[in-house]
Formats: sequence, structure tokens, C-alpha cells
Amino acid sequence: MSLMEARPLSLTERFAASRALTERLAGLLSAEDQTAQSMPDASPTKWHRAHTSWFYEEFVLGQDEGYEPYDATFRYLFNSYYEAVGPRHPRPERGLVTRPGVAEVSSYRVHVERAVTLLLAGSPAAALRELVELGINHEQQHQELLVMDAKHLLSRHAFGPKLIERPAEDDPDPAPLQWRHVTGGLRHVGHEGDGFAFDNETPRHTVHLDDFEIASRAVTVADWLAFMDDGGYQRPDLWLSDGWAAVQAHGWRSPEYWWDVDGGWKVFTTAGVRDLRRGEPVCHVSFYEADAYARWAGARLPTEQEWEIAARPVADRRGQLLDPVRLHPGLAGEAMIGDVWEWTASAYLPYPGFRPAPGAVGEYNGKFMCDQHVLRGASCATPPGHERVTYRNFFPAGARWAFSGLRLARS
Amino acid sequence: MSLMEARPLSLTERFAASRALTERLAGLLSAEDQTAQSMPDASPTKWHRAHTSWFYEEFVLGQDEGYEPYDATFRYLFNSYYEAVGPRHPRPERGLVTRPGVAEVSSYRVHVERAVTLLLAGSPAAALRELVELGINHEQQHQELLVMDAKHLLSRHAFGPKLIERPAEDDPDPAPLQWRHVTGGLRHVGHEGDGFAFDNETPRHTVHLDDFEIASRAVTVADWLAFMDDGGYQRPDLWLSDGWAAVQAHGWRSPEYWWDVDGGWKVFTTAGVRDLRRGEPVCHVSFYEADAYARWAGARLPTEQEWEIAARPVADRRGQLLDPVRLHPGLAGEAMIGDVWEWTASAYLPYPGFRPAPGAVGEYNGKFMCDQHVLRGASCATPPGHERVTYRNFFPAGARWAFSGLRLARS
Amino acid sequence: MSLMEARPLSLTERFAASRALTERLAGLLSAEDQTAQSMPDASPTKWHRAHTSWFYEEFVLGQDEGYEPYDATFRYLFNSYYEAVGPRHPRPERGLVTRPGVAEVSSYRVHVERAVTLLLAGSPAAALRELVELGINHEQQHQELLVMDAKHLLSRHAFGPKLIERPAEDDPDPAPLQWRHVTGGLRHVGHEGDGFAFDNETPRHTVHLDDFEIASRAVTVADWLAFMDDGGYQRPDLWLSDGWAAVQAHGWRSPEYWWDVDGGWKVFTTAGVRDLRRGEPVCHVSFYEADAYARWAGARLPTEQEWEIAARPVADRRGQLLDPVRLHPGLAGEAMIGDVWEWTASAYLPYPGFRPAPGAVGEYNGKFMCDQHVLRGASCATPPGHERVTYRNFFPAGARWAFSGLRLARS
Amino acid sequence: MSLMEARPLSLTERFAASRALTERLAGLLSAEDQTAQSMPDASPTKWHRAHTSWFYEEFVLGQDEGYEPYDATFRYLFNSYYEAVGPRHPRPERGLVTRPGVAEVSSYRVHVERAVTLLLAGSPAAALRELVELGINHEQQHQELLVMDAKHLLSRHAFGPKLIERPAEDDPDPAPLQWRHVTGGLRHVGHEGDGFAFDNETPRHTVHLDDFEIASRAVTVADWLAFMDDGGYQRPDLWLSDGWAAVQAHGWRSPEYWWDVDGGWKVFTTAGVRDLRRGEPVCHVSFYEADAYARWAGARLPTEQEWEIAARPVADRRGQLLDPVRLHPGLAGEAMIGDVWEWTASAYLPYPGFRPAPGAVGEYNGKFMCDQHVLRGASCATPPGHERVTYRNFFPAGARWAFSGLRLARS
Repeated sequence: MSLMEARPLSLTERFAASRALTERLAGLLSAEDQTAQSMPDASPTKWHRAHTSWFYEEFVLGQDEGYEPYDATFRYLFNSYYEAVGPRHPRPERGLVTRPGVAEVSSYRVHVERAVTLLLAGSPAAALRELVELGINHEQQHQELLVMDAKHLLSRHAFGPKLIERPAEDDPDPAPLQWRHVTGGLRHVGHEGDGFAFDNETPRHTVHLDDFEIASRAVTVADWLAFMDDGGYQRPDLWLSDGWAAVQAHGWRSPEYWWDVDGGWKVFTTAGVRDLRRGEPVCHVSFYEADAYARWAGARLPTEQEWEIAARPVADRRGQLLDPVRLHPGLAGEAMIGDVWEWTASAYLPYPGFRPAPGAVGEYNGKFMCDQHVLRGASCATPPGHERVTYRNFFPAGARWAFSGLRLARS
Repeated sequence: MSLMEARPLSLTERFAASRALTERLAGLLSAEDQTAQSMPDASPTKWHRAHTSWFYEEFVLGQDEGYEPYDATFRYLFNSYYEAVGPRHPRPERGLVTRPGVAEVSSYRVHVERAVTLLLAGSPAAALRELVELGINHEQQHQELLVMDAKHLLSRHAFGPKLIERPAEDDPDPAPLQWRHVTGGLRHVGHEGDGFAFDNETPRHTVHLDDFEIASRAVTVADWLAFMDDGGYQRPDLWLSDGWAAVQAHGWRSPEYWWDVDGGWKVFTTAGVRDLRRGEPVCHVSFYEADAYARWAGARLPTEQEWEIAARPVADRRGQLLDPVRLHPGLAGEAMIGDVWEWTASAYLPYPGFRPAPGAVGEYNGKFMCDQHVLRGASCATPPGHERVTYRNFFPAGARWAFSGLRLARS
Repeated sequence: MSLMEARPLSLTERFAASRALTERLAGLLSAEDQTAQSMPDASPTKWHRAHTSWFYEEFVLGQDEGYEPYDATFRYLFNSYYEAVGPRHPRPERGLVTRPGVAEVSSYRVHVERAVTLLLAGSPAAALRELVELGINHEQQHQELLVMDAKHLLSRHAFGPKLIERPAEDDPDPAPLQWRHVTGGLRHVGHEGDGFAFDNETPRHTVHLDDFEIASRAVTVADWLAFMDDGGYQRPDLWLSDGWAAVQAHGWRSPEYWWDVDGGWKVFTTAGVRDLRRGEPVCHVSFYEADAYARWAGARLPTEQEWEIAARPVADRRGQLLDPVRLHPGLAGEAMIGDVWEWTASAYLPYPGFRPAPGAVGEYNGKFMCDQHVLRGASCATPPGHERVTYRNFFPAGARWAFSGLRLARS
Repeated sequence: MSLMEARPLSLTERFAASRALTERLAGLLSAEDQTAQSMPDASPTKWHRAHTSWFYEEFVLGQDEGYEPYDATFRYLFNSYYEAVGPRHPRPERGLVTRPGVAEVSSYRVHVERAVTLLLAGSPAAALRELVELGINHEQQHQELLVMDAKHLLSRHAFGPKLIERPAEDDPDPAPLQWRHVTGGLRHVGHEGDGFAFDNETPRHTVHLDDFEIASRAVTVADWLAFMDDGGYQRPDLWLSDGWAAVQAHGWRSPEYWWDVDGGWKVFTTAGVRDLRRGEPVCHVSFYEADAYARWAGARLPTEQEWEIAARPVADRRGQLLDPVRLHPGLAGEAMIGDVWEWTASAYLPYPGFRPAPGAVGEYNGKFMCDQHVLRGASCATPPGHERVTYRNFFPAGARWAFSGLRLARS
């Protein structure tokens, strides 16, 4: 480790780095790519770039009465879901906001960056620094969403265009699955301490767990092919009722982005359409599929509490050294954090004693705690440094455009 | 208590009683009423009567090779959702199955009753007796669904027809809400022992709970009016994101079945359209509404574990003496079981170590454990004797046609 | 012809006969059958019976201030689409009006019949007699709708129940198609004279037609099988754009009510599921299918003006002698009226100079003159005496539940 | 008139001019604007630019075996609706084709223009010249669609951005409406002669018309305000049944693009949001609204035959001199062609003896002749020189994004 790495980055430096990474990702996309919205759940790149700037205007810069917003209409155009802030552009029509264009969004970003940098230079109060910290983490979340959404958009194109270049890779056999025993009892889960965490990771609290076992690696493409070969997508007994309805409604017969090309499976990746790689963690599966696979395998998904307890000793810190634009899972290995988000058996609910922050920023997490499912870990599209063993990601049971896979557990 | 009551009823007697109660409830409805289906989630009375008979044919009588089904087409027409049994009539079109008619369904019921009674007279194996027990409990569930569905159907009629006659009742002030303290620690929840329980109530297992407080009575109509007067249905900050979307999509501004008649609230009941009764538990609210109310009141919903622990000492046994066709909540009192189902904060998930029964009957509960919410207690439409402190009822967050209310808790 | 038949029936007699025929048709259906609504475009039998009574209450009996309506709520429940009359029960929910029941609808009908009969006995004004005449014709239209709707309802039942009994029939080869030449020039079309006609058949007016040829018989089942064998449902070049979209959206590959049973075609009829009969006119095809067939056959559909001119010399009067409950086409013959309605190439538009009647009754026809298609002739479900060479029936292009076929023309 | 104007332009010159006008219109829009699709019925500017080039590749250049298509994938991406050509990108997802980008579409256009120009320089056969003529007219149609679609897109933006700059204009009182008498009898309608016409304007044929009167000018904004003031959008008696359903479903209470700003009407135009101008022809009304207005005014819409006969003596040729990017109606005047398309009472049907062209190009018009309504004239967005007295434009009854108005007639 070099001397430079030894010094922790300042808030200003981390702010600048997070802003730069968004632009580096956006730079993979043309103005046209940045404008389109491929489904109501996804947003245009341009919108992500503007919204992550609006967030600072609304919650940080707006605290200063003298601050002049870049453009008064942006408060309407780039608010995501904060009811307390006021009316906003309808989500399914974000792709129709062709103005401001990409170039003007760049100007907007520069404007906001200057203002935040100046503010930080002035030794602001702790509360304001915490909001900048939240803004950085918020932008990191949108970096992954930006990649997910752009990948989904490009996948709608019949000819599979690329987001990045990546050379072909070999495909060694995946490591055999092993079971790690974890001893139960009274355990503590949730975030505690000085570092940043989202409100939904708190408060730290006590749970009782029985003994359990957890798989040594994520479920791989090779595993998934065995599930498919065994009629996994044709057997209702393996599926939740809603899951089976989804299979039939959408005609699912493989993970998202697997393309049947002349009778053989290819996979659409951020680097174009490729052969399957058997040793990779399976990715872009829904909760329904993860749950059905686990049932087929005679196992189950871990609860989020089990996952957190099991991950603590093996949580991978290599994330901070990784290339932030690799954007595709590597081979399934020992680390529990870093390739694919892992669906858990847990519904996304408030921890005992959970309290959202006061004001509009309190809408960040709490109001989504209904009919969503917790994923743990992080993915190849999660910006380095954003991962955390207590981190709670969440999506609806049918979502497949996240970089989502699974790991088995059993009692 | 008389001598007669002292003797527990035999399985045959309980079978006969459960069959008779279905017919008593159906007798409140004309052939036309029994045929219609008011929404995909509801079923015609006639269908409930036939389906609860098919259940015995499929799972009990069908075990005997010599059994002759009443009509081979009924296996298709009256299977509800058992994939393992084979294809079935589409659920949203149950109202189109005008044949068999009501009279023939009566014959079908008699046919099945004779066969089950003969079978029970022959000292069947324990496994078969357990399936009859399941059949009785299954039919009891459908008795409540029958009432819910019939009430929903009649409510679609502009002029509010009646299901039963009931005299007007006075409306004393509700008892003031008090908070009962419950001490936390390691506790055991779930069913254990000889009595009947559904698989979803098992296995009994250990949980860790913090201390909490629970309200001495359910939320009343008077309470709800205060919530409405305070803009409860107009303030997005009180609602889950999906809940607020539901308020706007459906135009909710009161519980289901409250009718705005010339600017004043009336309530559509099984006995027709009436004045509100302030002391009753509020009924026919969704999980979204229950959650928003609790937030407004500075409290929260109890988890199902908290509810079960709190209810144990005060669970009401009077249910077994009640009129099975009262079909409307009484005044909110001390009992935690008997007037309205109470929404909890818990998602409907498998208990640790849950295993569904083998075969088609294993589809009874497990496959619905996704994106539903647990209700505890029982309601005025639950048949007497069917309630249980470990009972787990469940509905989607937006459902309002169940007899569902709420009780507050706080940490 | 007997002496009795020689005397024209009085208005009172025709009123009574039309009322009786509705009851005779309804008598084929149970109370349950009469209650259900199989799609928004169809209505329950019970509703047809009540609505045709309401029509007299609203437009005839209501003219007398002293008339006491049978039940004030029926004005809301049984108004079909008359905006000028006031609000009404939503059309897609007619199947939920379980009350009044079938027996009470019978009482309602008797009540109305008595009142109209008394009124007619009192030598009412010509205008009132004309409204009774309209009421009779209105009820005749609903008799055919009642049959169409009941057939559609029973068809949704997986096991094909029957409406009537009818013995098996042989299937002689259809007569070869011949072309009749019709000379063009200035011609007059539309109704004129003393007999009853709907307003949409007037005024009689002049059109210019080129010479054309018309087929000697309707397109038969045998013809249609040839179309199907030649890929008729797989070739987009044969179809209108909207028609091809309908083929794909609904998966059409045969006329409505043709059932693929173990790889062979059967047809669901009012007398149950049967073998195809090659000599019958094809029935239950949409305008899209009729148009595609004509294109495939190198011909076209006649315009309604051509049809009317061609039909005049060969219009079949036998209808008046036919069994009013045969309810299935016979073998395709010379007559242009009587087995199936025939789609024309004409959009349903007002004739030059068309004026709807004043008042609510003016909504009878005019407001539907948009995006519908004219059918001419009559069908096996049209009550005898209701057919007329100037009669304009109409349905949307995709409708298939009418008794609709086609006849070819060419220039 | 100058000497230059006296010489008719060559096919090559007209080809070049039509290509240039498309680019001039597209030049009003950014790359982002050109990418978005605001509804399934509209297409992105970029798509129009590419599709009008594909049309030449498919139908003209592709006839030469040696022609190398610019990009083989464009045949899939930019086919509009020609089934005979093969599969194509789904219409509602044209906004997701972000690649090729705007710059590459420009290259594509240049490639095609060079090839067509070379081909024309080589004295091609008459059939090929006719296809180029069709290509020019096809591109002109898309120029108007491009403007309609871009206007619709910008209208979805809450702040009303501009497509062009235009100074404010005064608003003199509209000329009083006068009635022109037209004598009926046998008349000839449809295209005949050497000039270009679409197949749907042929063959010329004979019709019989009664005498009629036609208004001296189009219905104006002032007229429309009177209709609105008289409850035009609240009175079901004025509307077709489908029209009234549309009013209620969409909440219509003014023409499209009229914005209620603080209680007063403004209009969104291609030059931004402005005050109403009372003397302009009303624009962006649906057929339903045009029909209701005519009924309210005690008049009716003319049939397309009446319109054509009435327009012949007063058809405005000034169009050819007009600015092709004015894109907004002027004051209502004597001319029947040039400001707004005028809805007629006629359904869009084939003329007697109509025959579509053989091959894929035969899908151009004929397959849309169902449930659409004819508009006559031309609009401020129709490219100069494209208008024709026999021209048949058509849209569904509910469409409002075309530059569509109306003119009254009466018998």
C-alpha cells in the first residue's frame, strides 16, 4: 500500500471523486443514449446526472438563503419522489424531458459542484457535512442505477450494442459448493459506529438465530443451467404463486439478458452479446427465480440477518481497489461482496426502533418498506467503497434488471 | 355450562356442523346472489359451496380407489389453485359457471357429506382423519370468505341491499385507550401441541423481543374520524409510497363501505346502510391505511410476534358461544380476538424451519408467502371455534374487503 | 295459408306475442344463467327482460302522469345508454345486479304488460302507438341479443352446455357458388312507406352504383375451411392492418366457437358441441375475417347499397313462418335473409338528410354512427317478422358473437 | 412570376428539395429532441429521417442487385409497417433505438441521396421514376408527421419549450361565416390525369350528390369559445357515444394544446405558449369534437365528396409560395386548403374499383381503410406543393395531434 493510499480522503475529495465517476460512466453513452427511458422503473442517464445535482441543491445548498438555483424549473423536473418538496415530473415520462440537453446538464453539474466545493471550504456545520456525505452515497447509488438502466436500454435494441469494450475471457470450472456452518444464538445486526450508513441499517439490534449453514460461493451459471435442464421454469411446484404467475405472464425461461440465438444461449452483457461463462455467478434473476432455484436445490435463501452474520468474517474489502467500470461479474469466489447482489429471504421492513430522518430527506428509505425484498452484498456495478456488510438493498420480487444473484443457505 | 357442552364434539359431529353452517350462510342469498362474482379476488357463494366439497373429494374421498366422483367435470370447475391437481377454470370467470346451478350444488354437497360420513364411520387411519380435520378448517375459512365476498357483491348494488336483518343499536362512547406494557426477552411463538393448526403456524420457535406496549382496544370509528378530520387521506407524509399511490389511484378518503350520503358518512353493513357507530372497531381498512393511521397516531402496528405474546393472556374464548351469523363488529372491548382481524407490521413469511405438507395439499399456504401481510385475531365473520392465538391470516396490502382493523403498539 | 293467418295481427296482439317470445327464450335458461354477464358487450338475460320492460315505462307509460312505476330504482338499474334519462348502472357490472331476482323480473314484466295492454285498449294517440311499435321492435332486437349473449356465456363454460335440443342433421354438399349480375345506375335505397322502420333506414335517397355481381349464396363452412387450409389466418397480406393486429392479439385461427378438439374442428352451437356442417353458411366471423376472406377469394364485400338493391327481388319472406327458437343457421341457400347477418363493405353512417327522433328516444341509433360496420339480412336468431330489406344492423369490426357471415361481390 | 419559377423542377431537383426540407425541419431540434418518442402513435424525428431514407433503399435502390445497403440492420430498425418486407422494430419502442445516433442518420441520408441521384442521372425506367416520385411524396408526408410529433413531444414538457421563433401577431375579428350553395347531381370525384396522386385517390368515379351548402371559412377559435361557453364539453346530447366516452375518459374540455393557466386559456404552439387568437381556425380537435361542434351549430360536417366538389373552384394554390416552416395556422380566410386539415363526415374507405399497387408498396394505404376518418385540405405543416384537391388524409376519430380543424356544411 502506498503512502497516498494511507491518508483517508477528505470529504471534499470524496465529493469530487464521486462526481467524476458519474461523468466517467455517462461518458460511455451518447447524447441519444443518455436521453431515452426504457421502462417506467428505469431513468435516463441524463436524468440521473441532473437528479444527483438537484439533490445537493435541495438538501444542502438550499439551506443557504442566498443560494441561487441554476434553473427554477429543475426543482420540478429532477425531483425523484420527495412529496414534501412539491409536485414533480411524472416518472414514466422522464424520457420526454429532452430539454435541458446533455450539454446543459453538464453545465448544471459544474455549477452545483462549484457551490458545494465552496461551501465545504467554509467549514460548514456537522449537519451540513452529513448531508454532503448523504449526497455522495446517494450519487453512488445512482451510479449503479445508471449502469443498470443503460444496460436495460441497450438490451432493447435488437442488435445488442456495447457499453464498454472487454476482451474475451476463459471459463474455468467453478469451485465446488461447500457449506459453512454458522452457530446461532443471540446476535447483533445493523449498523453502529461513526462511519456512514443509511437510516435503514439502524438501529443495531438483537436477534435470535438458530444454527444454519451457508454456501461457500454464489450460485453459478453452470448451476443455473442444471436447474433449467431439470425443467426449473416448467414446474409450478417449485415456485411461489406470484412467481409462477410471472413466469407465465412474461414467458420467462432463463435469466434476463440470456438470448436464445439459433437454439443456443448467449448472454447480453455491457460488452455486447457473448457466450455464457459457466463459472460466473448467475446474474439478473428475480427474487421469484432465486426462491424457486433454492427450493429445487433442496435449500433456501438466507435471511438478511443470517447473511450479515455469515458475511462479517469474509466481507471482501477488495472492492475499493477494483475498476469502477468493469460492470460485469467475475468468477464466483469466496468473497460475499462484490460480484452480484444476493437475494435474501427477508422482506424489506423497518428494524425494531427504526426512525426516519426528519423533513423531506426522511422519505429516502422508510416509505418504501412494503412488498420489497432485501438483497445483500454488492455487485460489479456498485462503485468501490460504497459496499458495507450491513447494507440493505431492496427490489420488488419480479425485478431482474439489477445485478442480482443468490447464495444458498440451509437450516 | 350445560352437560352437553361439556362433551367435546366428535370429528363426525364437527364435520356435520361445519357443513351445516355453510348452508345456513348460503341460505341468506338467492340463487342469483350465489352465482355472481364481483371481482377476481372474490368468488360466488355457489363456488364456495362446491369448492369446499371438491376439497373432500380430492384430498379425502379420492384416496379410495372405489370412490365415484359426483361429476368428473367438477375437478376442473372447482379446483381453486392446486397446480398439482391439474388445469382449472380461470379464477376471474367463476361467475360464468352458471351450471351446475344452486340446486345441483346442493345435491353435490349431500353426496359428499354422505361419503365422508360413511368413511368416518369406518374408523379411518389417522392421516385420513387429519385430512378431514383440515377439510373442516378449510370450510370454515371459506365461510368467512363467503360472507366477505357476498358483502362485496351486495355493496356494488347502488341501493345497498341486506344480507341479514339486525335491529338498530345504541352507540355508547368507546372506552379510553390504555397502554399495556409487555416485557421482552426470549419468547416462543407458533403452534405446538395436539390441537389443529395450519402448517403456516409451525414450527414453534424462539424470537427475541424488546419491551413494548400494546393498546387495550382496537382503533375505533371515532378514532378514525379524528384521523380523517386531520387530513389523514390528504397528507403523503403519513403514507408508505405504495399506500399513497393507492389513495390516489382509487380515490380513497374513508374505509371501504363508508358511503358519503348527502355529505354525511353512512356505512354499508350486512344489515344494510346505517349510521356510523363510533364505538365500533374500524373495519374494512387496508394495511396501507392501518400503517398510515399508526404513523399519524405516533405509534406503530405490532409485529405478529408481539401480537401473539400480548394476546395470549387475554385471548377471548367467547367466540365459541357467539352467533355465527352476526356478521358485524360489536363495540371495541378488551378481547383481542373476535371483532376484526388486526393488521400487523409483519410480512407473511415462513417461520424458521417451515415445511409444507407433501403433495398437492402442500400448496395450501406456503406458496402465498410473498408480498402479503399478516393479520391476527379473528372477526365477526369468523366461524366460532375457528379462532386461535397462533392463527396467521394474510392479505395483500391494498385489500379492504376483509373484516380488517388494527390495534396500536409502541416501543 | 289459413284464414287466421290472413288477418294482420293488431298492435295489441303483436305486443303480446313479442312479450311472450322473450319469455319463451328466457325459459331456456336457469335463474343462474339469466344472471351472469360474460363480457362488457353482453348483458344478462334477466337484464334484457327488465330493460325491455323499462323501455315501455320510460317512453310509453311514463307519458301518463298518473302511472306508478313498478320500482323507482329500476330507472337506474335498467336504463341502457340513454343519457337524457339520467345516470345508470355501469354496463360492465350488469352481472352484479343480482337483485331483483328472476322471479321479481317476471312480476315486473307482468306489471308493464298489463299497463301497456290497458293503454292500448284506450285508443291512444298515434304517437303513442308508434312508440309501442318501437317498443316491440326494440324488444325483438333484444331477443336476438339475448340469444347471442346467452350463447356467449355458455361458450365460456369448458364443457359446452346446451341452450336447446336439436337432433343431428346430415350435411349435403353446398350448392356451387354462382354470380348474379346486377345493373347499376341511379337507384333508390332506404325505407319509405307506412310500415315500421328504424330511423337509421331513412330517408330514402338516391345513389349511383356501377354494375356489379353478387354471389348466389353465402360463404359456407366448406369455403372457410379452404381459406384456412390456404393459410388464411397466417398471411398478413390478406388482412386490414387492424384485422391482422386482432388475429395476433387474440390468437384467432378459426371463426368464433370453433373448438379444436384433439386436433379436429368442432363447433359449439346452441345445441352443444358438434361436428362442422360444410354446407352451412359460415357464422360468427368478424368484419376483419369477412374482409380477409373476400380478398383471398379475389372478390370483395358488397356495399350496403349494392346488397339492398341485389336483395330486393330475392328477399326471403319465409322468416315469418320459421321456428323462432331454431337458433342455428341452416344450409346456405338462395335466400339473402334468414340464416346469418352479412357483413358489408359499408361503414355505419347516417343517410343523407338523416334526422334522429327528438328527445331521449333519439339516442336509439344516431349516436352509434362511428367506427361500426353495417350488416344486412337477418339471422337464425332474428325473431320472425323483424327482418326487412332496408334493415341496417351494425357491429364493431372485431365483434364475433353475433350470428354474422358474409356474401361475396365483385365489380 | 420569375423565369426561374416558370420552369417546372426536374425529378432530381424535387428529390433534392424534399430531402433538404426534412433536414431543415430536423435542424430545429437537438439530438435529444430527435431521439424521444412521446406516444406510440408518434415517432422520433431521427426515426422519420431514417425511415424516409430506408423507403428509397427498400423500394428504389434495392431493385438494383448491386446496391449495397448502408447498414443491414436498418431494414429491421426503420421499416414502418410493411409486413411483406419482414419483421421490424416494435412501433412503441422507436424511442429506444438510440443507436444509430443523429450524426450517423445524417450519414445514412447522404449515402441514400447520392445513390438515388446517381440512379436518376442514369435515365431510369418510368416505373423507377414513379417510385422516386412516391418516395418524395412519402417524405413530404413524414415532414408533416415530424412536425406533429415534435410538437407533441415538446407539449409534454411542463414548461412549453419552442420549436421556432415567431413574433407576436394581432388578432382582428374573424370574417363572418357565409354559406355557399353548391348544386348537386351526378358528379365525378377522385384523381385523374398525369400528375402524382396516391392510390387511395383513385379511381375517379361517379357519385350522386344532393344540393348542399358549405361554410365560407373554417370554424374559428372565437366560434369554439362560444361552443365551450355553451357547455359544449358537458352536454352528452351533442356527442357521438364514443365521443362522449372519450370526453370523460380523457377529461377533455378544450382542444388539445389549450392550457388553462391560472384560469385563463393559453395555447401551446410551435413558438411557445401564447394567448389565444380568435380569428384563427380552431386546430387540434378530434373528429368527435368536430362532429359535436357541428351538431351544436345546427349543421354537419361535409362528406368528402361534397368537400371535393366545393373546393375545386377555390382550392388555394398559394401553398407553393408559403414558408415551409411557419407551422401555425394563420387567420381563417377564403381558401379551403392551407391552414388546417378539415374533418369530413366520411369514413376512410376504398373508392369503387380501388386497387392497391402490387407488392409491398401496396400496403401504403389500403390496409388502413377501416375505422378511420377522412380529412381534406392541408395544413400549415403540410409542405408546400404536397396539397391536392383530391388528397385524402385520414386519422382515427380520437386523434388530436394532427393540425386538424373543421368547416361546416348543411343540406
